Amino acid sequence: MPLLVMKFGGTSVADLDRIRNAAAKVKAEVARGYDVIVIVSAMSGKTNELVGWVNETSPLYDAREYDAVVSSGENVTAGLMALTLQEMDVPARSWQGWQVPIQTTSAHGAARFVDIPRANLDAKFAEGFKVAVIAGFQGVSPEGRITTLGRGGSDTTAVAFAAAFGAERCDIYTDVDGIYTTDPRITSKARKLDKISFEEMLELASLGAKVLQTRSVELAMRYKVRLRVLSSFDDTDEQSGTLVCDEDEIMESKVVSGVAYSREEAKLTLVTVEDRPGIAAAIFGPLADSGVNVDMIVQNISEKAQDSDKPVTDMTFSCPVDQVARARQALEAARDAGHINYGTLEVDEDAAKVSVVGIGMRSHAGVAARMFKALAADGVNIKVIATSEIKISVLIDRKYMELAVQALHDAFELDKAG
Amino acid sequence: MPLLVMKFGGTSVADLDRIRNAAAKVKAEVARGYDVIVIVSAMSGKTNELVGWVNETSPLYDAREYDAVVSSGENVTAGLMALTLQEMDVPARSWQGWQVPIQTTSAHGAARFVDIPRANLDAKFAEGFKVAVIAGFQGVSPEGRITTLGRGGSDTTAVAFAAAFGAERCDIYTDVDGIYTTDPRITSKARKLDKISFEEMLELASLGAKVLQTRSVELAMRYKVRLRVLSSFDDTDEQSGTLVCDEDEIMESKVVSGVAYSREEAKLTLVTVEDRPGIAAAIFGPLADSGVNVDMIVQNISEKAQDSDKPVTDMTFSCPVDQVARARQALEAARDAGHINYGTLEVDEDAAKVSVVGIGMRSHAGVAARMFKALAADGVNIKVIATSEIKISVLIDRKYMELAVQALHDAFELDKAG
Repeated sequence: MPLLVMKFGGTSVADLDRIRNAAAKVKAEVARGYDVIVIVSAMSGKTNELVGWVNETSPLYDAREYDAVVSSGENVTAGLMALTLQEMDVPARSWQGWQVPIQTTSAHGAARFVDIPRANLDAKFAEGFKVAVIAGFQGVSPEGRITTLGRGGSDTTAVAFAAAFGAERCDIYTDVDGIYTTDPRITSKARKLDKISFEEMLELASLGAKVLQTRSVELAMRYKVRLRVLSSFDDTDEQSGTLVCDEDEIMESKVVSGVAYSREEAKLTLVTVEDRPGIAAAIFGPLADSGVNVDMIVQNISEKAQDSDKPVTDMTFSCPVDQVARARQALEAARDAGHINYGTLEVDEDAAKVSVVGIGMRSHAGVAARMFKALAADGVNIKVIATSEIKISVLIDRKYMELAVQALHDAFELDKAG
Repeated sequence: MPLLVMKFGGTSVADLDRIRNAAAKVKAEVARGYDVIVIVSAMSGKTNELVGWVNETSPLYDAREYDAVVSSGENVTAGLMALTLQEMDVPARSWQGWQVPIQTTSAHGAARFVDIPRANLDAKFAEGFKVAVIAGFQGVSPEGRITTLGRGGSDTTAVAFAAAFGAERCDIYTDVDGIYTTDPRITSKARKLDKISFEEMLELASLGAKVLQTRSVELAMRYKVRLRVLSSFDDTDEQSGTLVCDEDEIMESKVVSGVAYSREEAKLTLVTVEDRPGIAAAIFGPLADSGVNVDMIVQNISEKAQDSDKPVTDMTFSCPVDQVARARQALEAARDAGHINYGTLEVDEDAAKVSVVGIGMRSHAGVAARMFKALAADGVNIKVIATSEIKISVLIDRKYMELAVQALHDAFELDKAG
């Protein structure tokens, strides 16, 4: 029997009506001949209520008890979904993490999958059950305590089950109808993609297109699980949404698939840093230890300092604006301790990042030139440039961000299919 | 290490402040040198919310899924209680039913305990944990599904743990400060009892003093678990509340310990029933099958019917008023099927039951006479009388109920201690 995994997020199971709506989509797939594993989140708002109680009870809470409390939201939805399916004459059974058992590490609040044994679910499918409803976002540790995967972990649960059970596809139902070439709030020309590769999705997700959790896409890529993102609020059929898949499955070959952005970026420059082996480690080690998420890094060419023979350089990097204070503190502490030496620290808190992403870049030259030309035509000054194999990112003044996204969307003709 | 079981009902853990208040009582017992097993109910209102969702989703719900959903309320409280205790520097850990594991039968929604193995909790106590917080009202079936014990099952959970762990006492914290000689709403002379025997408590509980669930008292009596009922809303010490215990522990020897009542009773009389062996079974079998809770039964002396040699009798019984229609239906069906034969069915829906209860009756004669005399002095007519070893009950007109309770409370001097 072919098997499908279907995952419904919090807004898709927000109340009993929404659960019925989701169950109808499950029933339709059963009617098409599938056995179905359904992964559910907590009803929207419930997790926040539980987290709020935990935080109010114990600001520095014991993560084991946090997990025991917070996981109950998904358990409720799983039971209600199974009951709803039964009401629709679909044989269904709910499963909490420990019943499968979904084996994870002991890292409470951020656990990782160790194994998802198939035996228990397979036995129920063999008995004639058509649907297994799984409480998402949770598992059980080797010590027999409940674990959670961290927020958004329901997507990861869905992909992990799809991999373990060899599912034909993993459908992620959410409140958007797919992946767009860019944010439709910035340009009405944004177009829904039929397909996108795992690699492109990873670059878009980490850049702010927050539809799919990065970890779930990484897991899907590793196990070649075909992911489909679609809306639970629309009528859907087998063509709906966006398929996230291996690039071999993508016939069309646009050079650029999407334009991503990140609005609240800061640019920091250490002026006249001594240029010696190990200096990058001496700078970025303390930043990482302080929890600063450094993104782009650029080192200028080295030159001799005016009053010395020692070579010096300027080191520029970007991080989220709200981490600037922490970054400054870490750098000053490292200087005070004598680990690094620099002239001044210049901070520009008015930056934004815009990126073009596409697997086609691998085989097409001139993408960067085309990007810079389009930005120049609109008078957008580039502060920093960083490139990867399938992505080119620029740091620009924040006030130009929307303009830049629109210009790049036009320049790469993303409003046109194929 | 001596061990105590403390159980907190829904109103005692209704919100985070109430949970903190309960946790402070647990901490006080730990300070007195006890290891403590805490049993918690769901925060008040939560179980009703969950049950409401299940009923709305599926009126004829699958009890397995009902249990999976409804049990989550206690899980939340257990985690929050453990966190609260940790905040107070009391080493605590929460336990859901399957983690202990609390082994029950598969009778979902009304499961019974099979075993409560000590190993897991004992290991944690040995590690230095002082408190185990147990989600009440639930267990796990041999099939690995979550079961619930039915409402009020948290009391039973508490007693079962006290028995399994040889607890010195099982303290039931609720919203009343103990067991009274009668309902204080009926007479301000009602007095809190320091001690009451299991047998008396059983008679009082089943008669409407709804403080302790009958099943939990039965279990406590069987395993000689000393129960204490006290209020979580008051400051309490080791003398607070009412101790429910073996009668050997009760030194004072009042003839009557309390006056109970049940307001909504009906009296039904089958007039001229044929008096033959098996007639009682033929009448009360169909009533039981229809779910009618028959309470008092009185059979008048037999006499010959006017137009026959066959002996006939009148059969009178009582049941709750809201079961009269069901009782009438069952009796008429049995007559139509030829299983019984009677003249008429007389129904009096304006009855109430008043009972005096006391283990002292066993050794004291004249209690019934004293009771009837007190009622007669106030002009209360008695419709039906039933007696057991430690209880005398009368069915009277409902309008006299309060008067009768007050008269009996005075007659047996229940306002005076000892």
